[in-house]
Amino acid sequence: MKLLRVDMNSRQVRWEDVPEIYQHLGGRALIARLLLEEIPPTCDALGPHNKLIFTPGLLGGAGVTTAGRLSVGGKSPLTRGVKEANAGGTGGDILGKLGIKAIVIEGQADSGELYLLHVGIDTAELLEANDLKGLGTYATADRLQSKYGADCTVFSIGQAGESLMTGAGIASTGEHEQRSNHAARGGLGAVMGSKNLKAIVIDKPTGKSVQFANAELFLQAMRTYAGKLVNDPKLGKQGTQHLYGTASIVAAVNEMGSMPTRNFSNGNFESSADLRGEHLRELILAREGKVGTRCMPGCVIACRNQLVDEKGMPIVGTLQYETIALIGSNLGIGNLDDVARLNFMCNDFGLDTIETGAALGVALEAGLVQFGDVEGIIALLNQVGEGTPLGRVIGCGAVTTGQVLGIRRVPATLGQAMPGYDPRSLKGNGVTYATSPQGADHTAGNAFGARNQVNPLGIQGQKELSLKLQIIAAMLDSTGLCLFSRPPIIADPQLMVDMLNGIYGWNWTKDDLDHFNRDVLRTELEFNRRAGITVADYRIPEYMCEEPLAPHNVVFDVPESDLDSVFETL
Amino acid sequence: MKLLRVDMNSRQVRWEDVPEIYQHLGGRALIARLLLEEIPPTCDALGPHNKLIFTPGLLGGAGVTTAGRLSVGGKSPLTRGVKEANAGGTGGDILGKLGIKAIVIEGQADSGELYLLHVGIDTAELLEANDLKGLGTYATADRLQSKYGADCTVFSIGQAGESLMTGAGIASTGEHEQRSNHAARGGLGAVMGSKNLKAIVIDKPTGKSVQFANAELFLQAMRTYAGKLVNDPKLGKQGTQHLYGTASIVAAVNEMGSMPTRNFSNGNFESSADLRGEHLRELILAREGKVGTRCMPGCVIACRNQLVDEKGMPIVGTLQYETIALIGSNLGIGNLDDVARLNFMCNDFGLDTIETGAALGVALEAGLVQFGDVEGIIALLNQVGEGTPLGRVIGCGAVTTGQVLGIRRVPATLGQAMPGYDPRSLKGNGVTYATSPQGADHTAGNAFGARNQVNPLGIQGQKELSLKLQIIAAMLDSTGLCLFSRPPIIADPQLMVDMLNGIYGWNWTKDDLDHFNRDVLRTELEFNRRAGITVADYRIPEYMCEEPLAPHNVVFDVPESDLDSVFETL
Repeated sequence: MKLLRVDMNSRQVRWEDVPEIYQHLGGRALIARLLLEEIPPTCDALGPHNKLIFTPGLLGGAGVTTAGRLSVGGKSPLTRGVKEANAGGTGGDILGKLGIKAIVIEGQADSGELYLLHVGIDTAELLEANDLKGLGTYATADRLQSKYGADCTVFSIGQAGESLMTGAGIASTGEHEQRSNHAARGGLGAVMGSKNLKAIVIDKPTGKSVQFANAELFLQAMRTYAGKLVNDPKLGKQGTQHLYGTASIVAAVNEMGSMPTRNFSNGNFESSADLRGEHLRELILAREGKVGTRCMPGCVIACRNQLVDEKGMPIVGTLQYETIALIGSNLGIGNLDDVARLNFMCNDFGLDTIETGAALGVALEAGLVQFGDVEGIIALLNQVGEGTPLGRVIGCGAVTTGQVLGIRRVPATLGQAMPGYDPRSLKGNGVTYATSPQGADHTAGNAFGARNQVNPLGIQGQKELSLKLQIIAAMLDSTGLCLFSRPPIIADPQLMVDMLNGIYGWNWTKDDLDHFNRDVLRTELEFNRRAGITVADYRIPEYMCEEPLAPHNVVFDVPESDLDSVFETL
Repeated sequence: MKLLRVDMNSRQVRWEDVPEIYQHLGGRALIARLLLEEIPPTCDALGPHNKLIFTPGLLGGAGVTTAGRLSVGGKSPLTRGVKEANAGGTGGDILGKLGIKAIVIEGQADSGELYLLHVGIDTAELLEANDLKGLGTYATADRLQSKYGADCTVFSIGQAGESLMTGAGIASTGEHEQRSNHAARGGLGAVMGSKNLKAIVIDKPTGKSVQFANAELFLQAMRTYAGKLVNDPKLGKQGTQHLYGTASIVAAVNEMGSMPTRNFSNGNFESSADLRGEHLRELILAREGKVGTRCMPGCVIACRNQLVDEKGMPIVGTLQYETIALIGSNLGIGNLDDVARLNFMCNDFGLDTIETGAALGVALEAGLVQFGDVEGIIALLNQVGEGTPLGRVIGCGAVTTGQVLGIRRVPATLGQAMPGYDPRSLKGNGVTYATSPQGADHTAGNAFGARNQVNPLGIQGQKELSLKLQIIAAMLDSTGLCLFSRPPIIADPQLMVDMLNGIYGWNWTKDDLDHFNRDVLRTELEFNRRAGITVADYRIPEYMCEEPLAPHNVVFDVPESDLDSVFETL
């Protein structure tokens, strides 16, 4: 495999053998190590010393089902620490097939100029792309696919990333005209914008495939793994996750009193029934939209949906739980069509729906628009695309919005907005938000799935649960696995070990895998420490520790001593 | 002496004997200790756990010339660390005479309500003050003095503080209708706003005076000190500091290439001659305005000025160097009348001219208005008073403005804007900006005065110089002395020791004074450490370490190892 280095200062590209220290790494693990090795930890995240990394997980390209996620990483302008955000689509698969361990964007082109990186089989060139200036991510993908072929993969930023808004993410295309996969979190779209790189186009790697060191070992483990997914009651053809996607959890999160409602001021949303995954599926089927499709090639879970309007015209796909929570209940919106319209706008501007939903929630608390006033909210969000001062504020995320508008109830840790689970009533997630080197990510260690094992309202067992989940998350994000596909690997980690050994010819044991997973967290924590981040930055906001959340009237009360000792056994 | 505690939660006031640990403290020293003892260091600076402290220096009220400054302190919403900002006017003197060691504002009133604290001789009451909502600091002082007497002292916030803008300061009145003394830095006006306290009115303490433990000792030292000030060639009647005030340094700072010009992109301003103190004096005299008046009762330096327009109507007073640099050359403005108009607006809205000038510089670099376009800049600044989204951004200071507008050349350390000396060509100030627990304050350790002893362009000797100056600054800010009045004390610290022993009956030696001064810094550094602030937060911005500054084409290159070891010998 090789690294593709792109120097934006000189506009030169360079292929490089993968250095020894990166050879056993991929995805999130590679990002963490590369940041620690190559980036001054205190550098300006939007300056020339930050690097933006696109890397498949270790399974990328090998044809493992549900394992083709693309990791994007760099120093986050929101958290000031390490950031890995991943997305579905075809990116992880094709980079793996092309034998590209990572594309590393370095330096900064002169401001005012915009570039495009075109990657083919063993080729890469940086091209002037000023004609794409100001385009949304949908139009960017359309224009580039009409030029480079409908089957190429496009990573791009929208207006938000171009304008260095720190709520900006990076969009990736997928099969069948998908344009709405996003490596959304942590402001990596602004990092891409700061490098003056509008898009990356990667040709379909026809005829290229991963070389297996031990194909038999790999295939056996891979087939066993796929079989277990297919037969899993939640993931298989009759499973809630296949049928309703991430939106399947709306009812349960609302019932546990964790559904962000009106800027995290309540854990119950009175119209949550209208936001449920079951209702979403009914709506789509009634209008002849799509359900049960895939965001990644070959996925056997197939939880993707595409909501269409009453005339059958696509609104957005895939509508997911986090968006429903942050753009829906958090803004007092109880209508999926409205959520979908706002979701499309975020996608097009290239905005993280979680960060932007939280920022809008703060803006609504400030009284700019009433909660639930969809047209008012659309007008606010439109300002982000237009780049008005208020739009820029909101585009910079929840913390900036709170500061500018004088609102202290900002649901964020480490500078980044919380996803769709109030930490007061799902305290395991609170521990993750307050300790993960990634900040408040729902994928960094989500305790929702363990709600029947550890009482979400209690403080007992939360720190142990969070650590366990964070270690698993590090593995998922480093191998390219979707969060949904973790049960068979958790039940039998040897499956993962055999797949990796089969591809790479390693002799890993389960202990080696565990060590690898933990090392991701250790590396990230060390980068953050060197970046000057302290426990004060990680803490759950003061108001959440003091203002009880309905309906359970609970505060976040996991002791700081528990938070500070989460990684003692790492 | 006593403490006056004001609990905004219950709207109760309480007189308290001064606790033992605070008895030897005043001004900045008291603020540092009180924060460390009483405030959770990681608390939300705009939340209920922060406290806002008004305290005279240790000499306050004793009639020492040039020693009546009022210190205001709390946790800064800009730096997240300790903040002491001080102002002239009558505040320090009357609090000392009233025997009030400090007024401590605690808790937070319900939002939407505004209050006024009225302090008399041994009385204090908290009154509803919603009629003052939205008033500027001039109108607030006018209204309160017409009600409580022209000789009362008023501390107040303007629209900026009420709106929780983190660039807001606190205004204080002085003798002879002065309304323009400001404890400007660090966003303490927003802290006052967060407590819903619009103003403090303090009756003139007629008949009250400081009780001296040893009046003779005190008087002898005090007279010697005053005599030395009067006879100092720079401070006396023919001295540049009396004649031209702080504006006397314009030519020298420009000549050394340190004058912030167009958002710190140059150290020379082509129109600096028009901004010189000499020119200011000529202008005022020609128009029959005032020069050589006092900001504090009994000051023998008397450097205050009041600029009037061509019809003799007051524009603003006193026009000072930092404002001339940040609102003048930094915005490309080379006309003192224009600077004065903008200064008046900042004062009235209750904004720090340093923070706001830096924020406007960043906004101009973003292209919102051309540098030097005075009417455009006035319109921008007006938006701050109006509270438009863009106005709020600018009102929140330089760092927020840079983030929202996507500008990375932000002249700030520890979240707070730099004063009027570019650290690249006055490297001693760079060391202070990058190490002082107060952040980039010109009063925290200003190397300008030592430019003939330590080469401002070199790196040798800077860390030792900065430490020495920071220790002296801690003494000045804790005793209530003006920065201008330090030479006699530096030459003979026994004068200060004798004055303090004479007032309080202590048996301090010069070593005790030195220990006291150093302990202020130690206490502040400890608070900041507990607040989670690390060296990464203190650093000079990356671009200043890489982009050479004209005319000397120098970067800030004092090694980080020097910065990290400044306090080794504290």
